[in-house]
Amino acid sequence: MPESNSVGIVTPQYVHIDKPLKLKSGTEISSYNLVYETYGSLNTGRSNAVLVCHALSGNHHVAGVYEDKPKSTGWWDNMVGPGKPIDTDKFFVIGVNNLGGCHGSTGPASIDARTGKHYGANFPIVTVEDWVETQAQLAEHLGIHQFAAVVGGSLGGMQALQWTLDFPDKVRHALVIAAAAKLTAQNIAFNDVARQAILTDQDYYGGDYYSYNTLPRRGLRLARMLGHITYLSDHSMASKFGRELRDGKFSFGYDVEFEIESYLRYQGDKFTDLFDANSYLLMTKALDYFDPANAYNGDLSAAFKAVRASFLVLSFTTDWRFSPERSRDIVKALLDNNINVSYGEITSTHGHDSFLMNDAYYHQLVRAYMKNIEV
Amino acid sequence: MPESNSVGIVTPQYVHIDKPLKLKSGTEISSYNLVYETYGSLNTGRSNAVLVCHALSGNHHVAGVYEDKPKSTGWWDNMVGPGKPIDTDKFFVIGVNNLGGCHGSTGPASIDARTGKHYGANFPIVTVEDWVETQAQLAEHLGIHQFAAVVGGSLGGMQALQWTLDFPDKVRHALVIAAAAKLTAQNIAFNDVARQAILTDQDYYGGDYYSYNTLPRRGLRLARMLGHITYLSDHSMASKFGRELRDGKFSFGYDVEFEIESYLRYQGDKFTDLFDANSYLLMTKALDYFDPANAYNGDLSAAFKAVRASFLVLSFTTDWRFSPERSRDIVKALLDNNINVSYGEITSTHGHDSFLMNDAYYHQLVRAYMKNIEV
Repeated sequence: MPESNSVGIVTPQYVHIDKPLKLKSGTEISSYNLVYETYGSLNTGRSNAVLVCHALSGNHHVAGVYEDKPKSTGWWDNMVGPGKPIDTDKFFVIGVNNLGGCHGSTGPASIDARTGKHYGANFPIVTVEDWVETQAQLAEHLGIHQFAAVVGGSLGGMQALQWTLDFPDKVRHALVIAAAAKLTAQNIAFNDVARQAILTDQDYYGGDYYSYNTLPRRGLRLARMLGHITYLSDHSMASKFGRELRDGKFSFGYDVEFEIESYLRYQGDKFTDLFDANSYLLMTKALDYFDPANAYNGDLSAAFKAVRASFLVLSFTTDWRFSPERSRDIVKALLDNNINVSYGEITSTHGHDSFLMNDAYYHQLVRAYMKNIEV
Repeated sequence: MPESNSVGIVTPQYVHIDKPLKLKSGTEISSYNLVYETYGSLNTGRSNAVLVCHALSGNHHVAGVYEDKPKSTGWWDNMVGPGKPIDTDKFFVIGVNNLGGCHGSTGPASIDARTGKHYGANFPIVTVEDWVETQAQLAEHLGIHQFAAVVGGSLGGMQALQWTLDFPDKVRHALVIAAAAKLTAQNIAFNDVARQAILTDQDYYGGDYYSYNTLPRRGLRLARMLGHITYLSDHSMASKFGRELRDGKFSFGYDVEFEIESYLRYQGDKFTDLFDANSYLLMTKALDYFDPANAYNGDLSAAFKAVRASFLVLSFTTDWRFSPERSRDIVKALLDNNINVSYGEITSTHGHDSFLMNDAYYHQLVRAYMKNIEV
């Protein structure tokens, strides 16, 4: 149920971008759809627009609920709304589902007009840079020439970062939360195991499982279970689940025994009904590829030279997927360029998932930063 | 090739234990085979026997090589041999393949005499306590009434610990390396994802894949890939692989791109030819179940009350599977019982895998401890 300070009932909108998009992979997409939602109102000066970029398994439905679906609360409803840290009484907030996603924007499950079939694995690999380009097209469609802020956590934070690099004049503030300037070998390793689980599933059918009226459920489930382990901290798993047994004693078999097993399997099963496997592959590749310093021989400070935005960078102490160290690297590179950056390392037990939670200090920092943005 | 101080050419030996074994699960095994190897000679007083317990993917072949197979070096050849830290000039060292394994001891791939078929998934769940019981049977068969030391790393260390609990008079020293007194929720979570990968593989056939002349290769491969991520430290993966690309540039596809992907897939593929999937399931359950403090309301100090052995406990700083904190818990519980314990926390970049490696300080500590053992 939406709280009294929720944006309330929302309706997704669609835009057809009828402009060819040349992707970083070299492939061109002739046109595409984006589904998005907006909360609040665009002011006369068009100076109060805030773009929220989603992470791996997120989408355009950032806040509010759908009519007749009281449990359909947006993934960042605790952050975005009237009087909330990202205040929709002040800002015009936009959530968009990225290209390659599976919640309404053009993606692998969409029909490719050229073939009449699902794109499937033929959907091109998309990068964070490609997404920012499409988001810029959406902004233009909405008559927005500059964002007051671009905000995101995890992969969403990478998009916020990319905005300041690709469109330095179109973004005044970037909120980069629980993110990183690039993935480590360990990060990539986890993503590759998740991909291999999907790709080697006998029901993957080279990505064309739609034609077989099935989906690589086993693989997608494993991918999600694995993802969940990386989103939680060792500590929070221990305190939430420990070694609790579902039946209080060993059953000496391979069915669920420990509560953590029950939790993970439940999360895995649930996810296979909510997310497209091909989209999952694409999202992990976008994560793996993101590396703005690469064009500068690994020098992140050099990569930030043309940046003009101001930043709020936030990390969480028990996040071992994108540890505080990664955020510190971003902060230092920004400071090397005398960029205005506020940084907070928030004590939290909830690991990488912290960025989705309602931590008081975290929300106060975002609230203060957003309050300070002139529109 | 064996070094000049290797035990040299070795030959596995088999024993048929014709005594029923009542397992912790309640199931009884009427008889079973164990494959083992020995290095060095048992002295007249039978006081110099050392038992080496293997970990998840290990076996009885601890040191030396097989005739005509120069690359078949034992998994702990750098530790066990003439003049090595576990000196076979002084000790009679025994390596045994645990029940449920797949290297010659009775396990899921063995034929169940009662049915004439492979045990498959009908092979009962075995615990660390069960293994110690079988190892005691082997000792009796070899005329050994007391071990100078029981040694192991990881799951092997858990067995060493169990020996001091179950047979306090039969073990004088326990070397417990890179181990833990129980697994955490995160540990169990990783094991369960590995198990689910195998169990949901369409070629698992309820564990009876032998009858179908196949094996759950995809699942076992994923399990191994995942295991490898947990055996390496974030740091060592970064320095060994980083974000190196195999072809120097992105290929915008799902084949191997990053070197870490290449490494993991290679390890996964290799493993499916070397290890039985049902055995893998059993090994992970034994890990999950191990919890000596559980019978004492979680009080490890109480669990160690009857322990009489002396201990060397070793941990490695970057081991995030069984972190130093876990070893410290063991050490403190031993100290609570005024047990003679030596403890070393070894600075290493190699994560959990460190216990298999030739770190100078690590080997010096083991060497010193072993040298100090009276036989």
